[in-house]
Amino acid sequence: MIIAIKPGVSKDEIKKLITDLENLGVKVDASQGASQIVLGLVGDTTVINDEAVRANHLVERVIRVQEPYKRANRIFHPLDTVLEFKKENAKIGGSSFAVIAGPCSVESREQLVSVAEAVKKSGAAFLRGGAFKPRTSPYSFQGMGCEGIDLLVKAKKESGLPVVTELMEISQLELFEDIDMIQVGARNMQNFNLLKELGRSKKPILLKRGMASTMTELLMAAEYIMAGGNSQIVLCERGIRGFDNFTRNILDLAVIPALKKKTHLPVIVDPSHATGLSWMVPAMSKAAIAAGADGIIVEVHNDPEHALCDGEQSLTPDQFDNLMSTLRKYAEIEGKII
Amino acid sequence: MIIAIKPGVSKDEIKKLITDLENLGVKVDASQGASQIVLGLVGDTTVINDEAVRANHLVERVIRVQEPYKRANRIFHPLDTVLEFKKENAKIGGSSFAVIAGPCSVESREQLVSVAEAVKKSGAAFLRGGAFKPRTSPYSFQGMGCEGIDLLVKAKKESGLPVVTELMEISQLELFEDIDMIQVGARNMQNFNLLKELGRSKKPILLKRGMASTMTELLMAAEYIMAGGNSQIVLCERGIRGFDNFTRNILDLAVIPALKKKTHLPVIVDPSHATGLSWMVPAMSKAAIAAGADGIIVEVHNDPEHALCDGEQSLTPDQFDNLMSTLRKYAEIEGKII
Amino acid sequence: MIIAIKPGVSKDEIKKLITDLENLGVKVDASQGASQIVLGLVGDTTVINDEAVRANHLVERVIRVQEPYKRANRIFHPLDTVLEFKKENAKIGGSSFAVIAGPCSVESREQLVSVAEAVKKSGAAFLRGGAFKPRTSPYSFQGMGCEGIDLLVKAKKESGLPVVTELMEISQLELFEDIDMIQVGARNMQNFNLLKELGRSKKPILLKRGMASTMTELLMAAEYIMAGGNSQIVLCERGIRGFDNFTRNILDLAVIPALKKKTHLPVIVDPSHATGLSWMVPAMSKAAIAAGADGIIVEVHNDPEHALCDGEQSLTPDQFDNLMSTLRKYAEIEGKII
Amino acid sequence: MIIAIKPGVSKDEIKKLITDLENLGVKVDASQGASQIVLGLVGDTTVINDEAVRANHLVERVIRVQEPYKRANRIFHPLDTVLEFKKENAKIGGSSFAVIAGPCSVESREQLVSVAEAVKKSGAAFLRGGAFKPRTSPYSFQGMGCEGIDLLVKAKKESGLPVVTELMEISQLELFEDIDMIQVGARNMQNFNLLKELGRSKKPILLKRGMASTMTELLMAAEYIMAGGNSQIVLCERGIRGFDNFTRNILDLAVIPALKKKTHLPVIVDPSHATGLSWMVPAMSKAAIAAGADGIIVEVHNDPEHALCDGEQSLTPDQFDNLMSTLRKYAEIEGKII
Repeated sequence: MIIAIKPGVSKDEIKKLITDLENLGVKVDASQGASQIVLGLVGDTTVINDEAVRANHLVERVIRVQEPYKRANRIFHPLDTVLEFKKENAKIGGSSFAVIAGPCSVESREQLVSVAEAVKKSGAAFLRGGAFKPRTSPYSFQGMGCEGIDLLVKAKKESGLPVVTELMEISQLELFEDIDMIQVGARNMQNFNLLKELGRSKKPILLKRGMASTMTELLMAAEYIMAGGNSQIVLCERGIRGFDNFTRNILDLAVIPALKKKTHLPVIVDPSHATGLSWMVPAMSKAAIAAGADGIIVEVHNDPEHALCDGEQSLTPDQFDNLMSTLRKYAEIEGKII
Repeated sequence: MIIAIKPGVSKDEIKKLITDLENLGVKVDASQGASQIVLGLVGDTTVINDEAVRANHLVERVIRVQEPYKRANRIFHPLDTVLEFKKENAKIGGSSFAVIAGPCSVESREQLVSVAEAVKKSGAAFLRGGAFKPRTSPYSFQGMGCEGIDLLVKAKKESGLPVVTELMEISQLELFEDIDMIQVGARNMQNFNLLKELGRSKKPILLKRGMASTMTELLMAAEYIMAGGNSQIVLCERGIRGFDNFTRNILDLAVIPALKKKTHLPVIVDPSHATGLSWMVPAMSKAAIAAGADGIIVEVHNDPEHALCDGEQSLTPDQFDNLMSTLRKYAEIEGKII
Repeated sequence: MIIAIKPGVSKDEIKKLITDLENLGVKVDASQGASQIVLGLVGDTTVINDEAVRANHLVERVIRVQEPYKRANRIFHPLDTVLEFKKENAKIGGSSFAVIAGPCSVESREQLVSVAEAVKKSGAAFLRGGAFKPRTSPYSFQGMGCEGIDLLVKAKKESGLPVVTELMEISQLELFEDIDMIQVGARNMQNFNLLKELGRSKKPILLKRGMASTMTELLMAAEYIMAGGNSQIVLCERGIRGFDNFTRNILDLAVIPALKKKTHLPVIVDPSHATGLSWMVPAMSKAAIAAGADGIIVEVHNDPEHALCDGEQSLTPDQFDNLMSTLRKYAEIEGKII
Repeated sequence: MIIAIKPGVSKDEIKKLITDLENLGVKVDASQGASQIVLGLVGDTTVINDEAVRANHLVERVIRVQEPYKRANRIFHPLDTVLEFKKENAKIGGSSFAVIAGPCSVESREQLVSVAEAVKKSGAAFLRGGAFKPRTSPYSFQGMGCEGIDLLVKAKKESGLPVVTELMEISQLELFEDIDMIQVGARNMQNFNLLKELGRSKKPILLKRGMASTMTELLMAAEYIMAGGNSQIVLCERGIRGFDNFTRNILDLAVIPALKKKTHLPVIVDPSHATGLSWMVPAMSKAAIAAGADGIIVEVHNDPEHALCDGEQSLTPDQFDNLMSTLRKYAEIEGKII
């Protein structure tokens, strides 16, 4: 931790600041630069409250050299975390490339079973489908709720695919007992109470990056869950807000190698929400595997033109099947197993 | 609602689409442009599912001319909404300029009472203070919780100022009975379950704009609460995420005249969180009133250098008192009452 | 073109507006919606000055349905534009995947020749190198200037590779006679005088997307050059400004399929400037080809740690050679020739 | 300057790096942190090439504590720079609040003279008007060019107001002899050749912030001009690119107090281009003076509905006159002279 002192501060004031800081248990080195004094703090600087130091009237800037996350940090946990779904023989992380596919929202038993069978046949390892839907408008379809969860559990039994669905608030948690992986949506990435609760759960968590969240904020959100004891987390890049509107969001694929360097957690990509346009999904799915992702989560609908939600971004089962054929070739080059 | 058809679509296909749309109860006018056919939909277009239309393979673009919010829309409710706190003789909206002041987080009885007295003396009409704190790191101070709420209620009794504090999840709602206005933080602006619950409450709501939310998304979040029957809402601009980092966020003051045009709800500004730097707060507070805001929410701390949270952005009581003197002069020009 | 009229405008006023518009040669259809009148303009709407219409006090919104670019528009020119460098047997566009490689800046004859030989051996089809360098600081190395151009021309003769280098102002144009492709940097994308001048030139142009330019603005910049008669243009995505700083910019790969749909011009990617970090360049290069790019422009330096500019983002010749091996496998899947 | 070393680097490697750095003339202090070694560089660190250090394989991060600009830095020049236009008795900076007003583009002698007289009567101190116009589309009106310059010089003689107009490329400079202040547009803020040329000129420069430029980049652009010997520079905030589109740009008013702290150069605001909407201009002009700006540059047109350019954002002379009345009241509070 580095503290740059404002110009013109007296030696006595600096001495007092150094004593205060050393009383917290760190060692302080002062360097006299050409026009500025800089303090270097050495030792366990996690005991220092950055904000209080920044508020000190002698201080110009405070710079943390170390990352603020620990359990998510690859430095302290060099090996890749791999999530295993043993009963279904599915994995996320390591040498697997996990494909999670299904409709944006669960609409009926027929729809879900038909999509589940189709995506399984094409090689998807997980089934997705929304029961509780976060919608910008209170007047839009809000999902089937509990009934949607029931249909997902039935589809899991019929297809043998583990299921992933979004949880929107803590009180829904009891409904998710038979769900295999709980999705935290982009809008809830910093719903800290929810994250703490999920830290106490034993379920695998699919944590989506917030629309305007930095990489560090995403890792701190994961850290909230891990601090509670749950480290079964998959991170998901789903597009960030940008200034152009030819796509719904800007898919930030460079975050994949960056995250893979900083953390041991698996990283997947959601090309459907990132672009909002089904004809872009294949290109962005291929780019995701090429960039080093551990998987994708893709929307597939048997009848996109009559989908109750996000039809514009859903692949048909045929389009998805074509995509999977190409992805298998890419996976081979990258030494990944689909 | 306007639908641009892709080039090369046959007349029969268009005819069928028009019939489908008219069966939903709207009238459709087709115009043949130089290189494109455009459909204009007339009537109650809220029955149309935009997403399904966008997913239609004949359609290139869908453009909604009307705003998607109704209850928040000034067109349907031309007069300003004014929130009245009768017992304390305080108002937000109309010709009032409401100043809400207090510490970032409640730290102790002494701190809160001392700040409450100071800000009241300087002319603040409301006391703020955080009991539940949304913090980026799980290792930072998370607020005093229930005890903080108790201290706020006591400070309200002693000072006579109505109190505002942030709610982080639905289950906390029962603790907020004696709180006068419930704050929904930027990270919860699209926590739709929370918004629905607050719609069923009768409490005034201070709704902060999300870090990367558009003006329309903010109004749709208000619409969620209003759709439930609660229209006691104050909107708050608190800075949006930008590409530079000399301030914590970009304070978007142009949203004030824009919101005042589009909605009847009062709009206030949080210059403390927007900038993160106490020495910028006076300039941005003055700019807020000049831009037409109905109030500000400002952090004041008796000892910013030892604040447990956000000390860097807190004014001292003296700095706040100076600011209030200047704001009164501005209010006079703008015909507002502080 | 669609014009939404403000609520409350009288029939006579609308009638007058329609007459004014029809006098410009277009046909106007008026539709009476539930709460708003909408005019649809049919015919050659390029004669209409949007800004004047927007400034009209009766008008609420103006929406253009058609794209504002013509020569760059794939609708009017469905086949891919392919740039051919016959003497050197190199191509950009169509089924080629063009690799342009070389140092950020030309530093010496030895450096340039050594890099040119290395990248040619690994399969690059073009040599890049900066002679005139746009630097944020006036105190940084500004490039070798004319001498750098001379060295590039010599390297071209020795290696047989066509050369690409950046032009920073019109007066430099005469120095570029033996340069094969002129690069317009991101900061000059809307230097309209320069674009017009390049429209009069016969040289192929590598046009980089501005740091905060929309896709449409990029295509309008190309349109400036094309309107002057030069349609030998390659578009280049090089990262846009974002709110995070783990990379220098956000590489927006979704713009590739979007551009390929909207325009017939080839599109390449600059993973070096986009990320600013050499260890990310291979992942982003592979993602670029996977997303459908027609090529990449990559920085390669024989001694990155002593580069005068951007060493942090340069690959060594060995790293580049490894990358090319992988890219060839990707190209095979995509049916592209490197 | 601070250099964080990667974990696991050997003592010998670090020793060698320290020796290399000290050979450049700086002193290096090494601190051993809990998990990382940090070097603090003391002395004249401007001799160090950041990029080369970043490219070093031992180095994880490089942090500059000092600002990269010198001539523009208030630390080295504490007093406000004031631009004086003696003949016309006009000033920018210090206790003046300078109002620059006029049409977006010069369209005719009648238009210009009529607007000049009107804005002078209302209290504007400078006349603005575009002769060379940077337009997104090659098919839009590009300005009257030299003839426009002539009209501006005539209007200056008739009105006695100093004139400000935009220069788009170096070769136009000779036409600007009788122009009082040269505007560099947002798109040219990093046209470094142009900046260098203006450094050799003796004319006052109005330097607009680029659409996606950081505060530091703006100051570095000023530094380019100042490094050439010209320090007659006014900085101008004109809105930055954002993710919403209710205004053309996001007006970043917090940059005003930030710039006033970091530099001695005057700072003005362009509310017309920032918002693109004339009805927002008064609110944003008042907010600008409240935030501490040294002036505004505002578009005024005698007939906005027939303006050849940007009519939607132009005030009428009457609206401008009303605005000036209010601004005078604000100026009085702020101790500024209009």
